Amino acid sequence: MTTTRQDSAFVALESYLAKTVRIEQAMTYLEWDIETHMPAGAASQRGEQVAALTEVRHARWVSSELGDLLEQAESSGLDERRQAVIREAKIERNRAVKVPVELSAEIARTKPVAGKSWENAKASADFGVFRPMLVTMVELRRQEADALAEGGDRYDALLGDYEPGMTGARIEGLFSGLRSGLVEILGHVRDSAANLPDISGRFRDDLQMKLARELASTFGYDWNRGRLDTSSHPFCCGSHNDVRITTRRKETDPLECLYATIHETGHALYEQGVDPALGSTVLGQGASMGIHESQSRILENQIGRSRGFCRHLFSRMCAVLGSAGVGSPEELYRAVNKVRRGFIRTEADEVQYNLHIMLRFDLERALVGGDLEVDDLEGAWNDRFAADFGFEVDNAANGVLQDAHWSHGLFGYFPTYTLGNIYSGELVDALFSDVPDLEDRLASGDTDALVAWLRHRIHRHGRLIEPSRLIAQAVGHSPTAEPLLRYLNAKFGELYGF
Amino acid sequence: MTTTRQDSAFVALESYLAKTVRIEQAMTYLEWDIETHMPAGAASQRGEQVAALTEVRHARWVSSELGDLLEQAESSGLDERRQAVIREAKIERNRAVKVPVELSAEIARTKPVAGKSWENAKASADFGVFRPMLVTMVELRRQEADALAEGGDRYDALLGDYEPGMTGARIEGLFSGLRSGLVEILGHVRDSAANLPDISGRFRDDLQMKLARELASTFGYDWNRGRLDTSSHPFCCGSHNDVRITTRRKETDPLECLYATIHETGHALYEQGVDPALGSTVLGQGASMGIHESQSRILENQIGRSRGFCRHLFSRMCAVLGSAGVGSPEELYRAVNKVRRGFIRTEADEVQYNLHIMLRFDLERALVGGDLEVDDLEGAWNDRFAADFGFEVDNAANGVLQDAHWSHGLFGYFPTYTLGNIYSGELVDALFSDVPDLEDRLASGDTDALVAWLRHRIHRHGRLIEPSRLIAQAVGHSPTAEPLLRYLNAKFGELYGF
Repeated sequence: MTTTRQDSAFVALESYLAKTVRIEQAMTYLEWDIETHMPAGAASQRGEQVAALTEVRHARWVSSELGDLLEQAESSGLDERRQAVIREAKIERNRAVKVPVELSAEIARTKPVAGKSWENAKASADFGVFRPMLVTMVELRRQEADALAEGGDRYDALLGDYEPGMTGARIEGLFSGLRSGLVEILGHVRDSAANLPDISGRFRDDLQMKLARELASTFGYDWNRGRLDTSSHPFCCGSHNDVRITTRRKETDPLECLYATIHETGHALYEQGVDPALGSTVLGQGASMGIHESQSRILENQIGRSRGFCRHLFSRMCAVLGSAGVGSPEELYRAVNKVRRGFIRTEADEVQYNLHIMLRFDLERALVGGDLEVDDLEGAWNDRFAADFGFEVDNAANGVLQDAHWSHGLFGYFPTYTLGNIYSGELVDALFSDVPDLEDRLASGDTDALVAWLRHRIHRHGRLIEPSRLIAQAVGHSPTAEPLLRYLNAKFGELYGF
Repeated sequence: MTTTRQDSAFVALESYLAKTVRIEQAMTYLEWDIETHMPAGAASQRGEQVAALTEVRHARWVSSELGDLLEQAESSGLDERRQAVIREAKIERNRAVKVPVELSAEIARTKPVAGKSWENAKASADFGVFRPMLVTMVELRRQEADALAEGGDRYDALLGDYEPGMTGARIEGLFSGLRSGLVEILGHVRDSAANLPDISGRFRDDLQMKLARELASTFGYDWNRGRLDTSSHPFCCGSHNDVRITTRRKETDPLECLYATIHETGHALYEQGVDPALGSTVLGQGASMGIHESQSRILENQIGRSRGFCRHLFSRMCAVLGSAGVGSPEELYRAVNKVRRGFIRTEADEVQYNLHIMLRFDLERALVGGDLEVDDLEGAWNDRFAADFGFEVDNAANGVLQDAHWSHGLFGYFPTYTLGNIYSGELVDALFSDVPDLEDRLASGDTDALVAWLRHRIHRHGRLIEPSRLIAQAVGHSPTAEPLLRYLNAKFGELYGF
């Protein structure tokens, strides 16, 4: 095959894939709409729309046309980018081929309806309202897992959607070391006499949003290619020139809105920072959810809850919202890092957050595997919560109903949050080694060096490099939980005097 | 063929069409997003997404699978509904077959980009900013018209998208009688010594929106199946359980926001009122844009600007926004019907509105036909405006750039507004004959009888009946402009004393 013929074969492949990518992008904004603007009564109609598009998408991935294009485009002389395109396309194609289109469409159709059912259940704090739809969703995803796993592990099969190449067993290994370390820190905190401050006051919605927008801008969020809305569960979606984020507000705690915004800005910077040349290719998105969470959580935690950034945040908070009962940057630093008794994962501090994740990881792995049924889920959640956190869940909205993920069928997604924390623990070591004066820069709201570093090490690559190789390349070795634990011990040791 | 075999053939056809309808619905919400929420930088990316879906849609309409399904489902024993499904499907299929898919995709791709270009041009009141994209759009739609017309009239070919069965020549006939009548009324108004009042004051955005929402509710808009946003040009989109409307606000004139909302509510009631059994079929939408405009304009004008409704509106306006400088319901009635010198179609009174439309109809017909080029459009607009309205356009934002339609390639859409006025003139005669106490009902905000009548005569039928037959059936004869002219003569004769 001559170079020219190989070129034209590859161009034909990319043109085919670009259309599929555009259709998948369009579906993303329909999902954004579900969470932000869609009228309640539209759920099942939207389900049918998404199901129809899911069939279109599926047909494009399994088509013999794509099979032929892949075959013609493959050859030994491909450069890294072309190899990556073919690698990613084959992964998607293989997954699509294994799952019956009717099943994919049914899952798509069910999502918006299950989502609204979850919203209603959460509003009335009644798991019974959501139970039937969750049973349906678990059953559908089990079927999908069986189709994908072909006799292998169900949970691993679903994980592949979020963290290609990762397995439940490897996660268990990474988590077990982390877990014992976190339990130890939490013990020290409980035993400590330190009394960290709280913020206080009531804060207007519009002013919270004003400061949230300002913080997103501080980190370089490009408003010409994005927007900020509110939703029940904050999220980021979209790619390239249309990357949207949401947050939520609590009248008595603007930090929830602000840190949710910083978190989602971390996701958004990743998508806005992918090399434009990867634009409409299958490589034009973040590499995995774990890598994605490393980008959101490093901004939210290691950067956003650092002493340096708290100096900047304090001055801006005083200007926009008032001092909120804290008298200095140091008091704000101590308030945003206070380890509090609480039910909610998204409000948890850095010590307890990962205990929330491990609870969900174990429960959803058992659910998907068939070792736990939905009827027993609320009880299992409450028992595990009491054991890990030392107090009882007061109602289902603060317990098993607090997260939207399972209503969307996202089983296998939760562990990527802690993977992200582990990766961000590694990244922050490398980052501070390359930018030693970062704390000082953050104190004046200067994030240029931070963002440039993340752009260079992570963002621009998109899916060019597989997630495990990307993170190893970025930090210089295979990641472990050790840097994260070291960081948490140092930070909370100083705050709580142990 | 047995009934059972015919049944199953029809079921297969409807199932195929339902998926196409769902994809088309999904595209509608992506277009809503463009106008309401999409970041400016996303226009060309969105263009690619819509182009990819346009190709999908096109492929479904021209497929041999659909051809076979139509052939198998057709037989002499079909009921009205099934005949209508096949009729509408064939119309769509025939149009799709004639237009090359690359051209359809290119038009879809161009729309969001041209839309943003128009927005920028309007903001700077500079037609030159928009001119290149308009040249592109006119050229693309001329090509499409040529493909559709197959040697026939280009403009008629495009009209078919909005008003199936209508021709430019028939519209010209309907309009010419109307035009002379309007010119006569306008002459009387100009000669009149009557001095109708204006409203005055400044009105907060949130209060305008509050009253707008209340008015939509007054007419029975179902918020569980819809929502209200703001956009540069108010519109309604969607169907069945997700019918969204937009409005716009002017600080010194809340009536613009309120009447735009009532207008779009008229469209929305139509879509929300289509028989749910027509749900995902090709019959599940309004019959034509002309019929659609009759539903919006009867609410906005014959109902919304009636003495009865002004009594209700006056009390609600006083409660929410203040009296706006008008001292009584009668003064409000006179203010909302005042014939004012103005540039903007959407702000025009019932007398001048149709002159705006006729201007656009003639210009766009010449543009599409090739008798006018984009380079000469601004001049042609300004000349015609001065001739018809008696004063000069002051800048392009108040002239040729005032409407979004042409940026979306909507050539052939404008005349449907005046068709709608003509139809609503006929409908209101029949309506008041059936509900003689309607004015009294409206005075207390009671719209039940009105909405029930429109539901019964128009809304529920969707596309079951062709537009010309639907309107003739609703009013008992073929519509003419005579009732509209009679109504306008009576109303403005009384107001201006002629």
